[in-house]
This record gives sequence, structure tokens and C-alpha cells, in this order.
Amino acid sequence: MTFKATVLTLYPEMFPGPLGMSLAGRGLQRGLWALDTCQIRDHTTDKHRSVDDTPAGGGAGMVLRADVLARAIDAASNKDDGRPRLLMSPRGRPFNQARAHDLAKGPGAVIICGRFEGVDQRVIEARELEEVSVGDYILSGGEMAAMTVLDAVVRLIPGVMGNMASAETESFEKGLLEHPHYTRPVEFEGRTIPEVLGSGNHKKIHEWRLAEAERLTRARRPDLWGAYMAEDDSD
Amino acid sequence: MTFKATVLTLYPEMFPGPLGMSLAGRGLQRGLWALDTCQIRDHTTDKHRSVDDTPAGGGAGMVLRADVLARAIDAASNKDDGRPRLLMSPRGRPFNQARAHDLAKGPGAVIICGRFEGVDQRVIEARELEEVSVGDYILSGGEMAAMTVLDAVVRLIPGVMGNMASAETESFEKGLLEHPHYTRPVEFEGRTIPEVLGSGNHKKIHEWRLAEAERLTRARRPDLWGAYMAEDDSD
Repeated sequence: MTFKATVLTLYPEMFPGPLGMSLAGRGLQRGLWALDTCQIRDHTTDKHRSVDDTPAGGGAGMVLRADVLARAIDAASNKDDGRPRLLMSPRGRPFNQARAHDLAKGPGAVIICGRFEGVDQRVIEARELEEVSVGDYILSGGEMAAMTVLDAVVRLIPGVMGNMASAETESFEKGLLEHPHYTRPVEFEGRTIPEVLGSGNHKKIHEWRLAEAERLTRARRPDLWGAYMAEDDSD
Repeated sequence: MTFKATVLTLYPEMFPGPLGMSLAGRGLQRGLWALDTCQIRDHTTDKHRSVDDTPAGGGAGMVLRADVLARAIDAASNKDDGRPRLLMSPRGRPFNQARAHDLAKGPGAVIICGRFEGVDQRVIEARELEEVSVGDYILSGGEMAAMTVLDAVVRLIPGVMGNMASAETESFEKGLLEHPHYTRPVEFEGRTIPEVLGSGNHKKIHEWRLAEAERLTRARRPDLWGAYMAEDDSD
């Protein structure tokens, strides 16, 4: 079964875009995953093809209509569709590497890209949309967030990355930020590579890298560090 | 002075991509911001045009070379360039809405997109790159992250968004997730709009929205809620 992504958007022409190139793009061309888009506007019923309206209770911006979006969702995924329905939204649960792994193991995802001020709450509830956030910032729409999620997920699908071992030592895979990297040239503007990395002593290299990963995580991400230490205690 | 973004990447053909459409794209066409790209590979000196090499100390993946990237950075931004140099990296400081506002007020940004296992630590130090993370997940490269940062920043540049008031009530702007939205139709699959929003009583509507924003934030993001309460206490 191939991982299948369906993206509901007002800008289908943005896709595949960057997802059609590099790692994700090669996987797409080789049929390791599939992508289609659904133009939300095709599911309007009025002659102006309006997808949004002013917010109930007043205020700035426009709100994506529940009825239009519900019709688009129903057209894009039937009841037996086992794929999760993600609404890209800054109000959502933070997307992370664990969720990327979960999604990569599944049949795919239906991803809804919000625009304007937001989406009518009733369609979120009626269609059981899972609100997902890529970070604590506001984008002009969900499209960039959808691409981000798909890029993170698709590279974990078997066969997409040449070297799966590479994924296992990355940031977050062990709850730590990754240690610093070095490569040739041995000297760069008077700066050398830490001696231990040239020692050939694999145990010492491993210890150095772990110590550096811990040092960086503690300094930069006290939140991750706290979770890592708590995890360690529970072992 | 126009906000100017320069993106250093191995995939310049990914740009402007989605940034050339919708809100950011219209701003670009109207000259409200500018974007150029620099192909890192153009700054190699060997006949194979290698940008990467195996990690010192062994291990999976490849590391972006310090010397090649330094030459690309020096070519893309001179010493008087007042723009911050951001390296998109999952090890970086989390990007957020406050940083988006800071960047939008400045002259622009030089954004370096990592690929492979990582970037040689020495060029990060020698060129004073600021590592910035868009979230706790791994992408196939920094390109999608660069687009995300630029989308978040560009929409805050005066004139890009039609309605700046819209930005002021969004998630994170007050340290809270945004309240639910509703719009016509009044009834959708038997679901109605909360009565208070039709009351015309602006004070009550404001109170309801604030209470909903607080409820959502407390339930979904205890981390933000804690910061919001601490902020409140210090007033």
C-alpha cells in the first residue's frame, strides 16, 4: 500500500512545488508515495464561488465556511478512508518527529489548508478534523505547513532515503539535539577538527558526541532536556 | 528600504515556489520585499563540485563543507550587510511569532538551507550563523523551513496583508491560542452558531472569546498557558 496524501487547498497550483524535487520528489516519481490536491473552491454552490464569509460576532478577517469545506472533504475522502484528517492550524497539537513516524507507517493523510482568519468550528467538529501545528507562528495559509508535514513524513517512508541509519542518529530521535558535525578540510581558517574525532577510538567518539548532544540540549532547549531526564529516570 | 531575503541552497529552483503565489507572491510582485537565491554548489573549487564529505569520526550521512559554504556566504553577503544570517537547523532556537515580527522590522535575512546530516560546525562559528528551528521534526533540507520563515515574516511587512487588524487578534499575538470562529450559514448539519455571537453585545462577545481562548490554551498548550499566567502576574 502506497502512502497517499490528499491536500485540500485554495492554491492547488502550489503543489507539488518543492515536494516535487529532491528527496520527496524522487520518491514521488518512483511511486513510493502519492499526492493529489482538491480545490476547495470547486465545492461552492453560489455563483460568486465564495468560500468564506465575515466572522459571526464581528471582527477582522474572513472565516472559511463549514458547508463548503465539508463538501470538499466528503468529495476527497469517503467514510472508509482510514487516513487521518489533519487541519493545519496554529491552534493545533504541535507536530513532532514521533507524529511523523506514526504518519509514515499509515495509509496516508488528508490535509486541509486553512486560509483567512480561520475555519468555522462546526466543520472541525462534524468532520473530526485533527488540528495540527508546525510551530508557534502564523503563516499566510496552511499550504507551507502541509508541505512541511509531508516532507518530514515522506522521508521516513522505506526506500525514500538512501540511508535509513542516517535518520536514527538525528535530532529528536533520542530526545536530544544532535551533536556538532565536522568534515574535511582538516583545517578551515585556522580552525581544526576536535582531536577525539580523529582518534579512531569509537567508544570515545560516541561518548564525546553524546556529551555534546546533552550539552547543546541543556543549553538551548531546557524543555527537551527536562523530558529527556524524566525519561531517563523512568527506565 | 525593502526587506531583502537571500537564500543559500542546493535547490534554488525550489524558489520562489509557493512564496511566488498568494499573499507573499503578490507582495513580491509589488516590490514590498525581494528574494534572491545563491547556489551553494557554484562555490566549489574541485572538478567534481563536491559540497559535502563524510563525517569526521565516522557515522552515517554526509556533512556540508565549511570552506564551500563560507565562500557562498561571503559571496552572498558582504561585511556591511546588516542582515542576520540564519541557518535552518533542528538544533536551533525555536522560531516564533515574536521573532517573525523582529525580522519583519529589519533589512531582511540571509537564510542558509542545510542538507545531508548537517553543516560543519566551524563555519557556523566562523560566520556567526544563528541556528533557527521551525519545529521539533526533521526535514529533508532547510528549504521548506526557509519558506516557512519567509512566509511568516513577509505577511507582517506593512502593505502585504490587506488588513493589519487581522494580525492583531491571531494565535500567539497575546500569548494565547485563538478562539473558535463561526460564519454563515447560521445552521450547518443541525449545528448552530453560539448564541452570544449573534447578541450584538460587544462586551459579552469579547468576554466569550477570551474565555474560549484561555480554555483552549490551557487544554492544548500547558506550556503557553504557564507563560501567559506568569506574564499576567508580573503586570
